[in-house]
Amino acid sequence: MTAFKITLAYDGTHYVGWQRQDNGISVQGLLEDALRELDGREVAVAGAGRTDSGVHALGQVASFSLERVIGGEALVRAVNARLPPDIRVLAAEPVAPEFHARYLARRKTYRYRIWNAAVANPFERAYAWHLIDALDRAAMDAAARCLEGRHDFAAFQAAPVTTRTSVRTVMSSRVGGESPLIVCEITGDGFLKHMVRAIAGTLVEIGRGRAPVAWMDEVLASRDRGRAGPTAPPEGLFLVSVDYGSP
Amino acid sequence: MTAFKITLAYDGTHYVGWQRQDNGISVQGLLEDALRELDGREVAVAGAGRTDSGVHALGQVASFSLERVIGGEALVRAVNARLPPDIRVLAAEPVAPEFHARYLARRKTYRYRIWNAAVANPFERAYAWHLIDALDRAAMDAAARCLEGRHDFAAFQAAPVTTRTSVRTVMSSRVGGESPLIVCEITGDGFLKHMVRAIAGTLVEIGRGRAPVAWMDEVLASRDRGRAGPTAPPEGLFLVSVDYGSP
Repeated sequence: MTAFKITLAYDGTHYVGWQRQDNGISVQGLLEDALRELDGREVAVAGAGRTDSGVHALGQVASFSLERVIGGEALVRAVNARLPPDIRVLAAEPVAPEFHARYLARRKTYRYRIWNAAVANPFERAYAWHLIDALDRAAMDAAARCLEGRHDFAAFQAAPVTTRTSVRTVMSSRVGGESPLIVCEITGDGFLKHMVRAIAGTLVEIGRGRAPVAWMDEVLASRDRGRAGPTAPPEGLFLVSVDYGSP
Repeated sequence: MTAFKITLAYDGTHYVGWQRQDNGISVQGLLEDALRELDGREVAVAGAGRTDSGVHALGQVASFSLERVIGGEALVRAVNARLPPDIRVLAAEPVAPEFHARYLARRKTYRYRIWNAAVANPFERAYAWHLIDALDRAAMDAAARCLEGRHDFAAFQAAPVTTRTSVRTVMSSRVGGESPLIVCEITGDGFLKHMVRAIAGTLVEIGRGRAPVAWMDEVLASRDRGRAGPTAPPEGLFLVSVDYGSP
């Protein structure tokens, strides 16, 4: 058996999300189907981030083991030949058997994109949240920075809660992008269910001027999901990269 | 009656092209349907460029006249409310009754995009030609520049020929873009059927090293469509902008 780590990009528009589910086609399901065909047996795949339906990935990481002897580049080609074109394996490498894409992830970076213009962009309709009213991006950036550090992010966690603790460390949280795009980018050691989308929804409330920058600290301190802004729609969200630290 | 000039962007993936046809849904057809609903009568729309099936537009221009009295911004909103989200009117303005989007266009700019990497990009699958072998972009740029000036472009014209002359002036023809994207951009006073796609296909032959840069001059001088490269696929092509000169 050889353990592999793969990096993949996908357009999440037509999937129920990363995780295998009964109600539709998942990225994990398609990947496991492709690997079963390749290895002639069931292959369980672990993914670093459980992206929701409609959420995209530029650098999702997954791990699994194969009986078949195959090199990284050949594996990339063989798996891509068995996947639809909106999912692509970008790289594959053999790793130590104890590698696990989810448990060993040290940092993940997510990006939330907003198209902030009077008219929607036909090329961004599945890749950004379209908001017409001009948002105050300086206020959004100031509020985003309030999240940096080690905090209890319960206010940004969707039910049902399945994690042991809602304390996470955010290494970086910034708002930038070239107008009319607004890009929220956040790097953390872990993320709760819908956390980035709840943060994006809260930043937009501040960007609209419905609440001051300091409201972000209040929401965070409250640990109450009812206090934060609405959950932003999935199409603006991208899992950008997963970092496993130095080997 | 008020004459209008509108600028629109569309994702051409799901259309038979700009022009109304019997075999499927066209951008012109949807626009004329929306305007008929708005004006209570048939409205004929003229478009600057007849983009083919699968070809996109960032700044197509169209003209038409309405009986209804309406301002530019209200017209943008009213038409967009009647169009699918992959077609968006970006701007509308009243113009002199003699304005015609096609006949009065002085310059058009087209962009052809190539994703030049071992693995396809799931987000570019409908917006770029995926080519695996590394292309020589310096050679492609040198060849592209050979097209600048006033020439007979018959070698890059698809049958059936319906235009009076195949002589056109190309103001600018360059190859650039940030790797792994290769972007061919060409501005001219007019374009023949499939001209940009035939040029892109010819540039790719040179980029692959199958022919030297000087081959572009030979092909151009031959005025023989059989000498040029293959027609590049439609999904990489964008009508970027249309210029009507100073008023």
